[in-house]
Amino acid sequence: MAKFLKVKTADDVLSMLKSIRPLEPERVSISSACGRRLASGFSASEPVPHFPRATMDGYAVCARDTFGAAESLPALLEIAGEVLMGETPGGRVSPGKAIAVPTGAMLPEGADAVVMVEYTLSVDNITIEVTRPVAPGENVLQTGEDIAPGAGLFCKGAMLRPRDIGVLAALGIEEVEVFKIPRVALLSTGDEIVPIGTRPLPPGKIRDINIFGLAAQIASAGALIGLRQTVSDRLEDLVRACLDALGDHDVIVLSGGSSVGARDYTTQVLASLPESELLVHGVAIRPGKPTIFGRAGRLLFWGLPGQPVSAFITCQAFVLPSLQRLQGMTEDEPSPSARAVLNRQLPSVHGRTDYVPVSLSGGSGGVEEASPIFGKSGAISILARANGYIVIPEHVEGLDKGSMVSVFPFR
Amino acid sequence: MAKFLKVKTADDVLSMLKSIRPLEPERVSISSACGRRLASGFSASEPVPHFPRATMDGYAVCARDTFGAAESLPALLEIAGEVLMGETPGGRVSPGKAIAVPTGAMLPEGADAVVMVEYTLSVDNITIEVTRPVAPGENVLQTGEDIAPGAGLFCKGAMLRPRDIGVLAALGIEEVEVFKIPRVALLSTGDEIVPIGTRPLPPGKIRDINIFGLAAQIASAGALIGLRQTVSDRLEDLVRACLDALGDHDVIVLSGGSSVGARDYTTQVLASLPESELLVHGVAIRPGKPTIFGRAGRLLFWGLPGQPVSAFITCQAFVLPSLQRLQGMTEDEPSPSARAVLNRQLPSVHGRTDYVPVSLSGGSGGVEEASPIFGKSGAISILARANGYIVIPEHVEGLDKGSMVSVFPFR
Repeated sequence: MAKFLKVKTADDVLSMLKSIRPLEPERVSISSACGRRLASGFSASEPVPHFPRATMDGYAVCARDTFGAAESLPALLEIAGEVLMGETPGGRVSPGKAIAVPTGAMLPEGADAVVMVEYTLSVDNITIEVTRPVAPGENVLQTGEDIAPGAGLFCKGAMLRPRDIGVLAALGIEEVEVFKIPRVALLSTGDEIVPIGTRPLPPGKIRDINIFGLAAQIASAGALIGLRQTVSDRLEDLVRACLDALGDHDVIVLSGGSSVGARDYTTQVLASLPESELLVHGVAIRPGKPTIFGRAGRLLFWGLPGQPVSAFITCQAFVLPSLQRLQGMTEDEPSPSARAVLNRQLPSVHGRTDYVPVSLSGGSGGVEEASPIFGKSGAISILARANGYIVIPEHVEGLDKGSMVSVFPFR
Repeated sequence: MAKFLKVKTADDVLSMLKSIRPLEPERVSISSACGRRLASGFSASEPVPHFPRATMDGYAVCARDTFGAAESLPALLEIAGEVLMGETPGGRVSPGKAIAVPTGAMLPEGADAVVMVEYTLSVDNITIEVTRPVAPGENVLQTGEDIAPGAGLFCKGAMLRPRDIGVLAALGIEEVEVFKIPRVALLSTGDEIVPIGTRPLPPGKIRDINIFGLAAQIASAGALIGLRQTVSDRLEDLVRACLDALGDHDVIVLSGGSSVGARDYTTQVLASLPESELLVHGVAIRPGKPTIFGRAGRLLFWGLPGQPVSAFITCQAFVLPSLQRLQGMTEDEPSPSARAVLNRQLPSVHGRTDYVPVSLSGGSGGVEEASPIFGKSGAISILARANGYIVIPEHVEGLDKGSMVSVFPFR
């Protein structure tokens, strides 16, 4: 019974996952970098903007010329030219002069502010009245005022979002170094499993839900599905499928084990792989107790329960975070969650962590209400109705109605 | 000045978007249907499970045989066999008998409940003691109890999530009809725009941020980028690029127009396309006033400001919802948003809708705090620091500190 030494708490498993190292880095174009995580942080190599820009349509002026200007006492300035968008200004602003500038154009030398066109009046072709004063620097984005050279921009492990891609483009960065995308081999097994096209379904059999549902979950976390195979519940077939996957996958996820026999198979399969190590043999959670975690060299190995609801929840709670670590998610990055008020009492059992599916609905005062979704163990329709789950920690005997809870959204 | 008749409020534009019809449907495998929206709703064609299943490891029994059982007064039952996972039970449970069943296996005929193995004791090879009573139906998932045949499962327009893919697999549905993915032609123009690899950057020029940033935003909303091109700011080149795009794109997004000339070009470009109609020429918002929206036959046409921050925000506020409508998002589906408390006063201007970038931080009582991010107009670093934006409606002169606001998360 030595194997039961490996039964872990949910927190134990999550702590273990923090030590997973990211995959090696690769260079990709910024046009395919969105959603990827940076393998190294970096700073701005140049200022943005790299020239002083007008932020409004108007006239570049010496601010001092406008001091005291008012509708009743406008400042008169001579128009000394025009700056064209994208061009270097031809002229220079000297006291008493103004040069027309469109938003985004370069401020001409000598000017230190832009008067908005709304606060000017044309007197004739070469003269304007300015009816409001501007302060030095007003309506001008100075060189480096948006992004200063040397400013820290992104940390290692940061996930690039669309607007970050814009920032990279602004700096002229065409490629970035990101962590590789994990390739996952997804295997599903079980005496009761038949291909989903089987019709009519023989009594006692169920369709292979996990090979589709888990694949969609894994893809939603940014990983790639490589091998994807329903395997007969025979040890040699399972071992062969895993050995096939070893070469070009970073993770094996094997679901199946709702039968007692298969549960033992999973650890035997892992033991048959080179350099393997069983790290977790069972987790003190409900649902998902028979979850198995190990390694074979650099490859991560997950054994999930075959029961689809348990498989879904353990995949969400443990497998997806492991995939995010491989992609470079840093140790201190919190799992996304929403705060909500529990709308009824929830009993639990001391010494076991419970994952309870909940639905969210608009509560009062800006805080949403979380309603636990009850149903018989294994009913997949529960998942379709839930928005996420809440966690009742192991050392708690339940949660009171009105408790503030963190809801971890389902993929 | 007839064109100013087309200046709309933000709400006008959002209402217009509600009338966008989805693209035609196509059939796809459920293995590539995640994230897609259903072109027709459907109901369950068969019960799940399609046989009564044990939800616990234990013994199938006649519940009545266990009534009154206790540790001090166990019920004695004869073991009449075993059900194997995935098999049709060979035997039948008659009064006084019990048949061993694993979780997920089929309940044998005659049985109406399962006693958990934890509440049984083996007396000898053919006899068990039951130490707790079970009620009829206990630890059994009845035929159709998870999903009843005919139960409405998905509405037209519902986006399929990983767990929905699992539900479809459970029902043996291998393909679904979903709305096609919009193909977007992204064009960027402007006298000041240079390719992002340009180094050193000539004074007055800026890199083509939008061709990368907008592409990432559009892809994040599930659409495909087809043509993606920086075009010189000449009318004939812009018209040619749009005509090239017409055949195999559903949407044209043309950014560029921070110069006054280019702004006019955009409507001229639209007018040059067959069956074109200008629907919006300017929106009373800040930033993003020069936004243009129209149609050319079935194609949607967006003209966005060239200034990257304005382009990003108008893309998020208007273009992405239009792409979601094309993918089948229904009229009544709300934009995702989070409730937060505004942590300072925000002035605004009556008659104009303001989009203000904010960052979110953990507040008290489960409600997050929204901090407006100020900065000079056009500073792209503002976007990198913001989590989303709040909207100050047109008929409001500002928001008080402590107001409850909806934060629309940035992509």
